[in-house]
Amino acid sequence: MAEAREATDVAQDEDTGPDLASFLAHAAARVDAELDRRLPTVADCGDLAAAMRHLVTGGGKRFRPALVLLACRDVGGSEDDAIATAAAMELIHTYSLIHDDLPCMDDAKLRRGKACVHVAYPEATAVLAGDAMLTLAFEVIAAGTPAHRPIGGMIVALGRAAGWAGMAGGQVLDLAAEGAEPDLDMVRRIHEGKTASLIEVSLRLGAMAGGGGGEDVERLARYGHRVGLAFQIVDDLLDTEVSAEQMGKDVGADADNDKLTWPGVVGNEQARADARRLVDEALVDARGGREEALLAALAEKVLSRRN
Amino acid sequence: MAEAREATDVAQDEDTGPDLASFLAHAAARVDAELDRRLPTVADCGDLAAAMRHLVTGGGKRFRPALVLLACRDVGGSEDDAIATAAAMELIHTYSLIHDDLPCMDDAKLRRGKACVHVAYPEATAVLAGDAMLTLAFEVIAAGTPAHRPIGGMIVALGRAAGWAGMAGGQVLDLAAEGAEPDLDMVRRIHEGKTASLIEVSLRLGAMAGGGGGEDVERLARYGHRVGLAFQIVDDLLDTEVSAEQMGKDVGADADNDKLTWPGVVGNEQARADARRLVDEALVDARGGREEALLAALAEKVLSRRN
Repeated sequence: MAEAREATDVAQDEDTGPDLASFLAHAAARVDAELDRRLPTVADCGDLAAAMRHLVTGGGKRFRPALVLLACRDVGGSEDDAIATAAAMELIHTYSLIHDDLPCMDDAKLRRGKACVHVAYPEATAVLAGDAMLTLAFEVIAAGTPAHRPIGGMIVALGRAAGWAGMAGGQVLDLAAEGAEPDLDMVRRIHEGKTASLIEVSLRLGAMAGGGGGEDVERLARYGHRVGLAFQIVDDLLDTEVSAEQMGKDVGADADNDKLTWPGVVGNEQARADARRLVDEALVDARGGREEALLAALAEKVLSRRN
Repeated sequence: MAEAREATDVAQDEDTGPDLASFLAHAAARVDAELDRRLPTVADCGDLAAAMRHLVTGGGKRFRPALVLLACRDVGGSEDDAIATAAAMELIHTYSLIHDDLPCMDDAKLRRGKACVHVAYPEATAVLAGDAMLTLAFEVIAAGTPAHRPIGGMIVALGRAAGWAGMAGGQVLDLAAEGAEPDLDMVRRIHEGKTASLIEVSLRLGAMAGGGGGEDVERLARYGHRVGLAFQIVDDLLDTEVSAEQMGKDVGADADNDKLTWPGVVGNEQARADARRLVDEALVDARGGREEALLAALAEKVLSRRN
């Protein structure tokens, strides 16, 4: 499934070279197998397991796991050292989607081309599935990372990126800013918290799991921060431009929910220029390790993506 | 606040000896200071911080943190090694209360004598405050436990206890069992998941943080499992017996929500006998370390508590 999906993505995207396409397909297949191994089955815990697997098995670009593996390779590590962390980042990303889609937040119905978890299952099960996936993410990193890697430091970094100082804090700001006056500083803080922090920490954890030194870890984290911010700016642009069928989720939702968006503050043209500049900066940080070409190609793909 | 509150608890409870009373007051004061140090402030993240602090600063017996510190002392460790874990267990417990009280779950209004978080703040903020507290718990253990302790193993144990195999799974079973035929095996699984697993892991993590050997860790975990199950049976009994004012939360809620409870299956008299037997078994596991007297007194207090 994952390979077929990624192959389709790639075929639609003329800017993606063959090396990146095959790496992404490889990364998606590896992380899908790891997720299947780490997630409970219906025999373990019934509907809770089904709800936890609902979105994970429903597609997704596996962008964050690919970044984890790429950062690990960039510092000379083996993918085996980082595959658990790669799966954990997809668990965290998916938990955040499940909770963000809840009726009390974005009240979405469609995600990754299928019903949201709280639509397909009771709302309480959706909340608890998200809780259990967040919990499992920390467990999987601790259980699956070699003991000689800095597991404690990785857990601290993930906590900061996913918690009040990162993703959860960004979501609160995002909800509070609905209907607010356009303000670039506020949009930046929301996007840094909601999106860039988790993408940044994907690179950071991959490099740490791969045994990278401090300078490489910080260089890759910077790359991730810039690519992450560009990713969200492009997401805002796509929300205004493409169909729900292409995106596999509700679109135009930002405007419907009166969300503060980057193009909403600076206009579409300037937003495209800002994303380009961030990717150009990321290309500088892509240099210095063993995977410069793939890191550069992935940063460019963020700009050219259509879904 | 904490010391005054615990002193009042103790004065009302004639079965609690002076040593246990002073230990509980001491543990509550230490963990309250640690929580205040670890939680964000309103200057950090506004309403999210206020929502995260709402229930934590609103009382609570600090039962799980006291068990963490006691297990650490029992194996000869310093409380300093386990104080971060003690705070983390209160964060996890509080996050579970916030999510369990949500409209889509127990739809409670009153907790620890004040409005539930989703009543005092927007529902979305309550969901995210719970998410951020769960995230912070893992971060605090990793950041605050000495590096020579088995941090990775502690994170794995906490993940299992709090996630699909433990607390989150128990809550799903609890909701699914509303209105079901009385079934002791099902009630046991719900109580083991929802309550005993977190109390058990409080002992386990405290012993691990204190440098305890495998046998002591397992002995204290067994003590925790039995005390935890007894604690929940007593909770079920109190729900039928005492006033909301005494409990500081909605009572009679189990019957209102058609919950499966231990006394609902076996009757009040047998439930009291079952709790007594579990505490007697725990008293055996209380033997072998440096804090047998306090562990025994705490197990007895679980039976005699009035709130």
